[in-house]
Amino acid sequence: MVTQNASLYWFFCEFVVLRLEIAEMAASSSLFSTSFQGVMSFQNTNLCYKEFNCRYSNFIRKQSSHSNSKYLTHSRLFPNERSSEFGQNDKFSQKNGFLCRTLKIENLPSFSVGNKFQLTDVIESQQFDRDLLSAIFEVARDMEKIEKNSPGSQILKGYLMATLFYEPSTRTRLSFESAMRRLGGEVLTTENAREFSSAAKGETLEDTIRTVEGYSDIIVMRHFESGAAKRAAATAGIPVINAGDGPGQHPTQALLDVYTIEREIGKLDGIKVALVGDLANGRTVRSLAYLLARYKDVKIYFVSPDVVKMKDDIKDYLTSRKIEWEESSDLMEVASKCDVVYQTRIQRERFGERIDLYEEARGKYIVDSHVLEVMQKHAVVMHPLPRLDEITVDVDGDPRAAYFRQAKNGLYIRMALLKLLLVGW
Amino acid sequence: MVTQNASLYWFFCEFVVLRLEIAEMAASSSLFSTSFQGVMSFQNTNLCYKEFNCRYSNFIRKQSSHSNSKYLTHSRLFPNERSSEFGQNDKFSQKNGFLCRTLKIENLPSFSVGNKFQLTDVIESQQFDRDLLSAIFEVARDMEKIEKNSPGSQILKGYLMATLFYEPSTRTRLSFESAMRRLGGEVLTTENAREFSSAAKGETLEDTIRTVEGYSDIIVMRHFESGAAKRAAATAGIPVINAGDGPGQHPTQALLDVYTIEREIGKLDGIKVALVGDLANGRTVRSLAYLLARYKDVKIYFVSPDVVKMKDDIKDYLTSRKIEWEESSDLMEVASKCDVVYQTRIQRERFGERIDLYEEARGKYIVDSHVLEVMQKHAVVMHPLPRLDEITVDVDGDPRAAYFRQAKNGLYIRMALLKLLLVGW
Amino acid sequence: MVTQNASLYWFFCEFVVLRLEIAEMAASSSLFSTSFQGVMSFQNTNLCYKEFNCRYSNFIRKQSSHSNSKYLTHSRLFPNERSSEFGQNDKFSQKNGFLCRTLKIENLPSFSVGNKFQLTDVIESQQFDRDLLSAIFEVARDMEKIEKNSPGSQILKGYLMATLFYEPSTRTRLSFESAMRRLGGEVLTTENAREFSSAAKGETLEDTIRTVEGYSDIIVMRHFESGAAKRAAATAGIPVINAGDGPGQHPTQALLDVYTIEREIGKLDGIKVALVGDLANGRTVRSLAYLLARYKDVKIYFVSPDVVKMKDDIKDYLTSRKIEWEESSDLMEVASKCDVVYQTRIQRERFGERIDLYEEARGKYIVDSHVLEVMQKHAVVMHPLPRLDEITVDVDGDPRAAYFRQAKNGLYIRMALLKLLLVGW
Repeated sequence: MVTQNASLYWFFCEFVVLRLEIAEMAASSSLFSTSFQGVMSFQNTNLCYKEFNCRYSNFIRKQSSHSNSKYLTHSRLFPNERSSEFGQNDKFSQKNGFLCRTLKIENLPSFSVGNKFQLTDVIESQQFDRDLLSAIFEVARDMEKIEKNSPGSQILKGYLMATLFYEPSTRTRLSFESAMRRLGGEVLTTENAREFSSAAKGETLEDTIRTVEGYSDIIVMRHFESGAAKRAAATAGIPVINAGDGPGQHPTQALLDVYTIEREIGKLDGIKVALVGDLANGRTVRSLAYLLARYKDVKIYFVSPDVVKMKDDIKDYLTSRKIEWEESSDLMEVASKCDVVYQTRIQRERFGERIDLYEEARGKYIVDSHVLEVMQKHAVVMHPLPRLDEITVDVDGDPRAAYFRQAKNGLYIRMALLKLLLVGW
Repeated sequence: MVTQNASLYWFFCEFVVLRLEIAEMAASSSLFSTSFQGVMSFQNTNLCYKEFNCRYSNFIRKQSSHSNSKYLTHSRLFPNERSSEFGQNDKFSQKNGFLCRTLKIENLPSFSVGNKFQLTDVIESQQFDRDLLSAIFEVARDMEKIEKNSPGSQILKGYLMATLFYEPSTRTRLSFESAMRRLGGEVLTTENAREFSSAAKGETLEDTIRTVEGYSDIIVMRHFESGAAKRAAATAGIPVINAGDGPGQHPTQALLDVYTIEREIGKLDGIKVALVGDLANGRTVRSLAYLLARYKDVKIYFVSPDVVKMKDDIKDYLTSRKIEWEESSDLMEVASKCDVVYQTRIQRERFGERIDLYEEARGKYIVDSHVLEVMQKHAVVMHPLPRLDEITVDVDGDPRAAYFRQAKNGLYIRMALLKLLLVGW
Repeated sequence: MVTQNASLYWFFCEFVVLRLEIAEMAASSSLFSTSFQGVMSFQNTNLCYKEFNCRYSNFIRKQSSHSNSKYLTHSRLFPNERSSEFGQNDKFSQKNGFLCRTLKIENLPSFSVGNKFQLTDVIESQQFDRDLLSAIFEVARDMEKIEKNSPGSQILKGYLMATLFYEPSTRTRLSFESAMRRLGGEVLTTENAREFSSAAKGETLEDTIRTVEGYSDIIVMRHFESGAAKRAAATAGIPVINAGDGPGQHPTQALLDVYTIEREIGKLDGIKVALVGDLANGRTVRSLAYLLARYKDVKIYFVSPDVVKMKDDIKDYLTSRKIEWEESSDLMEVASKCDVVYQTRIQRERFGERIDLYEEARGKYIVDSHVLEVMQKHAVVMHPLPRLDEITVDVDGDPRAAYFRQAKNGLYIRMALLKLLLVGW
């Protein structure tokens, strides 16, 4: 994996030293320009010391042999170092009026360049094994830094993402669109494709995809039918990301859930997770269970009203993967043992006419201050959101309430996936 | 107030003079790059005289002491000068082949940098006193120039605005989105959050805000409930702008109204304003009355059908602030005395079943060519739009018809507020 | 026509050669910065050979007479050459350590600059004569290269397009928005202006336009009423593009159809075109017939169910222009003779209650593998999309199925029109 890092360029002549200290946020190919910050200075004077920003890419730090000064190593192939390593070069000897200092690049993420991402589409959580998850999470962590330090980051400049939402989902759509824009990309939006598009005139999904792929570089699709994402990916010549297809999959949610657990708990092997609420219909908890099965010594507790119990396929799968699981009706007891209490919403729309069953299921397992009391200090409460009253608002203030951080992690995971699918590792 | 202006940079060596004449449109921190235009030229030759654009920030004009030439003052701290002042430096003495000229920067606005805006959110017009209004209007006037001269202005580059519209309002939404984009920022849009978002699933506004603040840098919210903006601001860790909350406030409309009066009439103290139409339900006229009370010797006339008269709270407030007001049923007489005739739409939706009352109220006070005839030459007709027939279309051609200019002013006011909330004065 | 091309700049001094080899993608005025790629190198060393990107404009290749080296011609006024011509300069003599090479710019389109486009709005296909079509198509072909090579192209940077869609049409809207963004412009979107905007409150189209023109630089409008685009253009001070006005015109569709025929068949004079399906209601085929009448020796075949026959106005027009046409009910026979089989959808919404007539019309002329069998090898099947089953899916795989390429061509035509209306030839 070739990584690319902050680099340094010196431009030197008799009267002038133009010093460029470049913090390359990212560069992937000659098509993409990147931002850098640096300083220009004149020799023997501090008059003209100013920071500036510009967008170059692939600068390297080099120097003419003419000037008798030190040749600075090309940073591009530095193995895996972060900018901190640059601190070593922080002050070079001055020679012939040549002065070099690296400044303020310690927080900038480094991005690997050019290696193709192994997936062409993101359709279901089964695509992700342990190693791939780990590598994606590393990219996502770098994205956290981008988001903080470089609003101007431009890795995906010139790329166009089409959000094809056949079913409105503001949270997921805004998260993807924010991710794309945080990386310098652009967005084509359909907020309600089912009602507003040619689908209403009877066009097949395949035809729509064939058209939209002509207008964009990647498609993020939400659909009301299970399997729709797979059909879209089979048709499209550009990457497709499944942003939820009906009762089917919602893989980016599953990824951000696992990412959040790792960020919050610090590990994935050996964790104890309680899945609470609607385990029958919630695709979130089903996908999460699949992904947790990738890790060692995981124990899963299912806590749900009888009408919405976890289905056998998942239980069988976990058993086949030697993942310990048990069902429980005692949330307090489970909460006291777990690292993660993953609460979910009882979805009224799944109960049809049976409002009575819905009301019964809904009030059964509530995460409130009493549950917090028994939970361990390091444990966290998660929720895919939106929530109604299955987590009481007095929980929000507790540092163990991780659900809004979890939502934010969705941004980083989506930034990582967009980056990987469009420009590779 | 530190202002930042067009600056000039010289790069000089034995064979080459690289002249950068930089018109910095804006720069706020090292995170933001800015555009400049300039020229490069070789010494003793006109061969290489070309304009170019690039995006640097914080350039200063300085020169090596080596070259024995003049040290040009750092322009960043120039007090309040516009670029015109640069004309003084238009030709410097040539020395050692050093040639300097400032060109084509006279129309560029200067922006102050770095001082925090005193508001963290824009929720209601009561937040704005006379001095603050005046300072904001100055920024808005600079925005008028940006809009004309620099489509590429990038003050808000890298910033993301979420427009959370729970109630569709194309005019207000497009105005905010245009403002953000004119300043180089990006936009996340929800055209109809009420129907399309998790709100429909029962999520609280607070939860939605907590999620959306993770995806954006500022939230512009339109809501159907009075007080919603205040609740959102109390929750959000990022700035919130109220783009109208039901019967409550619509502060950016109030600001643009006052800004328009100042632009059109040239002053705010001592003006006479007629508020016409639906004064009971129109939040616009209510907010405007509040803001006009900030000024001296203002006289307000209320002209409205009986069923939609101005309510007592506003009348009492004006009285307490010693603002003269009177009610009148004679539009012609009032129009002949006023500087501003502010017409409003009678909103059918406020009348419920009483179509008869609506029809009666609606036709009562129409601004037409007869009203224009009695109006003074310097006076103007304003309207918050949309209008139906309360201003006849033959008025549109008269230079005193200010309502479309008023709508355009909304752009500048919103540009100013976005700039101030995101990067300060 | 002044064209602007890849240019080259050398910066030379005693210790350093900074070589900028610039491929200017486009530049139109000093307001627009452009991207270039280049290399920097030190003299006598290969250490510092790196590509970079930056956004300058109007660079020229020049060199100080001081350095005794060659003055390179200013490329801006090169007549009509493409970058290939630069190959001639590919290696210059080295002198005083001066080394010059042009690299990798052969595929970049050149754009003419500054000449005003003869149209201020695009309202109906009658605006386009043969010469204008030909010139626009040339620009569209350049756009195909931009789309492939330069996601970062910035011709329309700083421009804002408002898509005012009173009737949802995802395909057309996304196509325009993609076009704008591919050229660096920004977009204000209304997905459903009829329902969501002030139109619902009774505002006239003219008032809406007067407001929206204050927020944007060009308006793309879809409306449900014939003639709406003309009214909008009469009101607006900025360009208006008609993206379909009810049963009226849809000129960009007509242009992309003709463009596709030229791209696929290689000529427009002397072609034989079958128009199939709903010829009475399909504005597409009506506009296409108008435009085909601009060319020589064209023959048009009308193949349609009796209830939706081509109307007399078009037939009379073709006759008056001496364009041969005939009606036929034998699709197989016609298909075997034609260069283009242009199939259209029978629009159910046009039949009202008469579902029986719709069903009868709908199944009558299907393009399937049997039709393909009789078609000539060079001929193509076109369709404005969306399609239902009037072209069977087994046709999709045949290279003569041109309809998805046709949809893609819509992007290039729209890029060309946006460019021409906003910055001229």
